[in-house]
Amino acid sequence: MESGTKKPVKVIPLGGLEQIGMNITAFEYEDSIIVVDCGLSFPEDDMLGIDLVIPDISYLKDNADKVKGLVITHGHEDHIGAIPYFIRELNIPIYATKLTMGIIEHKLTEHNLMESTRRKVISYGQYITLGCFRIEFIRTNHSIADSAALAIYTPAGVIVHTGDFKVDFTPVYGDVIDLGRFGELGKKGVLALMADSTNVERPGYTMSEKTVGKVFERLFADYKKNRIIIATFASNVDRVQQIINTAAHYNRKVALDGRSMVNIISTAKELGYLNIPDNTLIDLSSLGDYTDEQIVLITTGSQGESMASLSRIAASLHHTVSIKPNDVVIFSSKPIPGNEKAISKVINELEMKGARVVFEDTHVSGHACQEELKLIYALTKPKYAIPVHGEFKHLKRHSELAMEMGIPKENVAILSSGDVLEVGEDTLKVTGKVSAQQIFVDGLGVGDVGNIVLRDRQHLSENGLMIVVITLERGSNQILAGPDIVSRGFVYVRESETLLDDCRMVALETIERCFDNGITDWGKLKNSIKNALGDFLWKSLKRNPMVLPIISEV
Amino acid sequence: MESGTKKPVKVIPLGGLEQIGMNITAFEYEDSIIVVDCGLSFPEDDMLGIDLVIPDISYLKDNADKVKGLVITHGHEDHIGAIPYFIRELNIPIYATKLTMGIIEHKLTEHNLMESTRRKVISYGQYITLGCFRIEFIRTNHSIADSAALAIYTPAGVIVHTGDFKVDFTPVYGDVIDLGRFGELGKKGVLALMADSTNVERPGYTMSEKTVGKVFERLFADYKKNRIIIATFASNVDRVQQIINTAAHYNRKVALDGRSMVNIISTAKELGYLNIPDNTLIDLSSLGDYTDEQIVLITTGSQGESMASLSRIAASLHHTVSIKPNDVVIFSSKPIPGNEKAISKVINELEMKGARVVFEDTHVSGHACQEELKLIYALTKPKYAIPVHGEFKHLKRHSELAMEMGIPKENVAILSSGDVLEVGEDTLKVTGKVSAQQIFVDGLGVGDVGNIVLRDRQHLSENGLMIVVITLERGSNQILAGPDIVSRGFVYVRESETLLDDCRMVALETIERCFDNGITDWGKLKNSIKNALGDFLWKSLKRNPMVLPIISEV
Repeated sequence: MESGTKKPVKVIPLGGLEQIGMNITAFEYEDSIIVVDCGLSFPEDDMLGIDLVIPDISYLKDNADKVKGLVITHGHEDHIGAIPYFIRELNIPIYATKLTMGIIEHKLTEHNLMESTRRKVISYGQYITLGCFRIEFIRTNHSIADSAALAIYTPAGVIVHTGDFKVDFTPVYGDVIDLGRFGELGKKGVLALMADSTNVERPGYTMSEKTVGKVFERLFADYKKNRIIIATFASNVDRVQQIINTAAHYNRKVALDGRSMVNIISTAKELGYLNIPDNTLIDLSSLGDYTDEQIVLITTGSQGESMASLSRIAASLHHTVSIKPNDVVIFSSKPIPGNEKAISKVINELEMKGARVVFEDTHVSGHACQEELKLIYALTKPKYAIPVHGEFKHLKRHSELAMEMGIPKENVAILSSGDVLEVGEDTLKVTGKVSAQQIFVDGLGVGDVGNIVLRDRQHLSENGLMIVVITLERGSNQILAGPDIVSRGFVYVRESETLLDDCRMVALETIERCFDNGITDWGKLKNSIKNALGDFLWKSLKRNPMVLPIISEV
Repeated sequence: MESGTKKPVKVIPLGGLEQIGMNITAFEYEDSIIVVDCGLSFPEDDMLGIDLVIPDISYLKDNADKVKGLVITHGHEDHIGAIPYFIRELNIPIYATKLTMGIIEHKLTEHNLMESTRRKVISYGQYITLGCFRIEFIRTNHSIADSAALAIYTPAGVIVHTGDFKVDFTPVYGDVIDLGRFGELGKKGVLALMADSTNVERPGYTMSEKTVGKVFERLFADYKKNRIIIATFASNVDRVQQIINTAAHYNRKVALDGRSMVNIISTAKELGYLNIPDNTLIDLSSLGDYTDEQIVLITTGSQGESMASLSRIAASLHHTVSIKPNDVVIFSSKPIPGNEKAISKVINELEMKGARVVFEDTHVSGHACQEELKLIYALTKPKYAIPVHGEFKHLKRHSELAMEMGIPKENVAILSSGDVLEVGEDTLKVTGKVSAQQIFVDGLGVGDVGNIVLRDRQHLSENGLMIVVITLERGSNQILAGPDIVSRGFVYVRESETLLDDCRMVALETIERCFDNGITDWGKLKNSIKNALGDFLWKSLKRNPMVLPIISEV
């Protein structure tokens, strides 16, 4: 009996557990670390001005010599979006299936990282060895083709990571999830299952992507005389395939709109993941050459994203497409929580311009519901369950589902980002914590906007700003200029001149009182002005602008 | 034939059509104006720092001598919330049913307006005469007791305004909506129907409020050993009644939490709209005297509102209540679109502290679905349909429903706020437009925050601020102090000192170049600095903070 094989493996999620998105998990055993996925997330409402949120990889940088490779399950932003930022810090090889790699390569090219990044395309069933880990890619179904689950062979046992998955017995592209392989692994013994929690609150099964195709057929028959615009997720290649099939059936040309739509679809087409009949795809600029009933336009913006194509069309800000009363707009999507109002706004705008908006049954989820999850548990029969990919409430439900499947409570781990979980034959325990903050990307700046900056933005956004400028004479503390008041985002100045005069008086009196009391320290002066004006504005207006006294001396 | 009776009546919605909330409609005929409802709405996401939004009543103020009275349909904030602001500007009498008036009076007291405001409580079936209008209050059902529809007798004909309503054949308090009266009016002839569009997208009927009581019975039986916390809308007195009934049945004491909950329930109790068994209600402070299974806590915060009771409990910020692992939290509500994320946050926090969160079937809507609307159309048989209370997409669906009910397309009016609609025997036409802006309330300021202030707040919130301070010598344009840079909400300063040094250099070079070119005008100087720093920051960081040059002269 070797003692080495008995040691537990460390599982360290660095993101993706407190909120959906930003999936990244490290697996560590002695001198080997592998990283599974490297996603970004989009900013929450309170992350003012932030463009993207990426994971904190300081733990990996501190252990750079151990990190062997980045293994990617599928090509969605919440699993690949942070790769360019990661690769700039830690240039390790990337392993992914063909379509996934195609999408990653597009991203690397945009970031000028193609040359310097080692990449290897992996097929289902293929193994790779990274340090003391061996990783097998297993076919799954999801809302993007070429998704994979991973069997991670560690010295402590096999960990199965499902990635994002569903069970689709009639997928549009490719084959059914390789349930047999999950079963084989289960027979040999699976130490831990890390499975997708997104839909764990939903009973039953997720419908097959193919069911959507039938609805398109019906809608195209219903709206034969109308121009049809369909908004969907750029990355759902199978959805686009079904729209193209239906369009071809009804002799319509298809135009694509939206940068991510054009990018992903052209990658998918090049790599053979889309089957487009000749002369079906037309350029957006040639829309005018066809009549309404000859056209389908597929756009991004199904979540009401203000900069996306559909929102620009709805707001009459699109360079080529404008809504006409005969248009039918189909949302082939479901609102992601938080986007409902933005979507409503787009619908109102479209309908005001006379379009008919259709919101029925043209979407199915890409994530497993309860019965599919139970199927994977039944096949893999893991000793431990480590729910992933969900907020706390999802992980909690998932842990209950695991217990229903016979896993004892003490064998289920609900983790937070940064937890170091040790998993071994006789142990499942959080033994440490590494840094796993959210790193904010704002413009070109990565990490230079932190909580203090955000707090200031919040304060400014709610209350605006009042600047008090004073120039003092060096030595004598004579006021040479000011106090002058400049405000932004506070009140409409022209109507509030008396108010600003009053503020000037309050500032002046405060400084004079300070001087009378012998207070000349600038810090104390500024604080006194801040407090006096803060009190005055709260009493008179119940408002609390940021007060910024600026003193200069000549 | 009198020519006067042939003139059309003007219907002028002053709010409530572009977004849900802020319901207020004026009816005008010659020298008489009446106003129906006077609601507020809560700020949209882009109305930064705004507390409330109230209607623009400048048209009414311009015609103050004509305005005879304020007629209120029911006691919800989106129908009564702006009354104090209205009454301060236009002190006219208020007419409402008993509970509605009780809630209004509470509001007037808070605003110190009780003494000065004329009020008259009206019963169902009672008529009031205001100028040339006669108004009859008709019993309806809704999610608050004492709701009324109005039959407005105008010289041009009868207009029926449903207020917010549903058809509840088994209401918890009071009687079924007075369908017979709608039928009588229909037989006599209704000129126009203005009906609630909220649920017009939903087929079928809205369930009776009583169905919720049965679910409470089941949940109380399931969770006999747990402390039960129920979050619901403060104004849903019938919901609270049903919780109290179930609590009494299971020998539990009831405590109320949240200011609006305590206010409305005490008003409802005083006025006899709640039937509370002796010794059932306990004070929040005496919660500690009872065991978990003896308690039900009813709180506000079912929409995840950050300042409401439930959110404070979830975040461990509540003064009395803290979550224990044995707690069951029932959401007796449905997420209002836009609140999904805030609610998820509260659920995650509650579950992290060990509570079980229940989200099932303990809510029914207070608004009519399609079949109920059709029923009202069938009874009233109006000549014209004027859908109200909804966004454009609702009004659009509602107009389709009216057409299904046999009303010709040209007899349906879809209005925008501020439209002046003339309705007469032979006419239905928008003939004018009055001011109907959204008036922002921020602290004590009403209307002093407008679009420029909001645009600045938006800019500051996304990019922060960079202030450049320079002191010049009067006459010589010698730089005596600065340029100094102060930033807020832009970058974390300690890590970005070089950047700020660079900014100082850019500002200095710009001023010197200006002086070299003989430019000394402060406006031009400031603009040059703003542009130079703006360019520099965009090129180096792809960011766009507000740049505020401040020049002083001594």
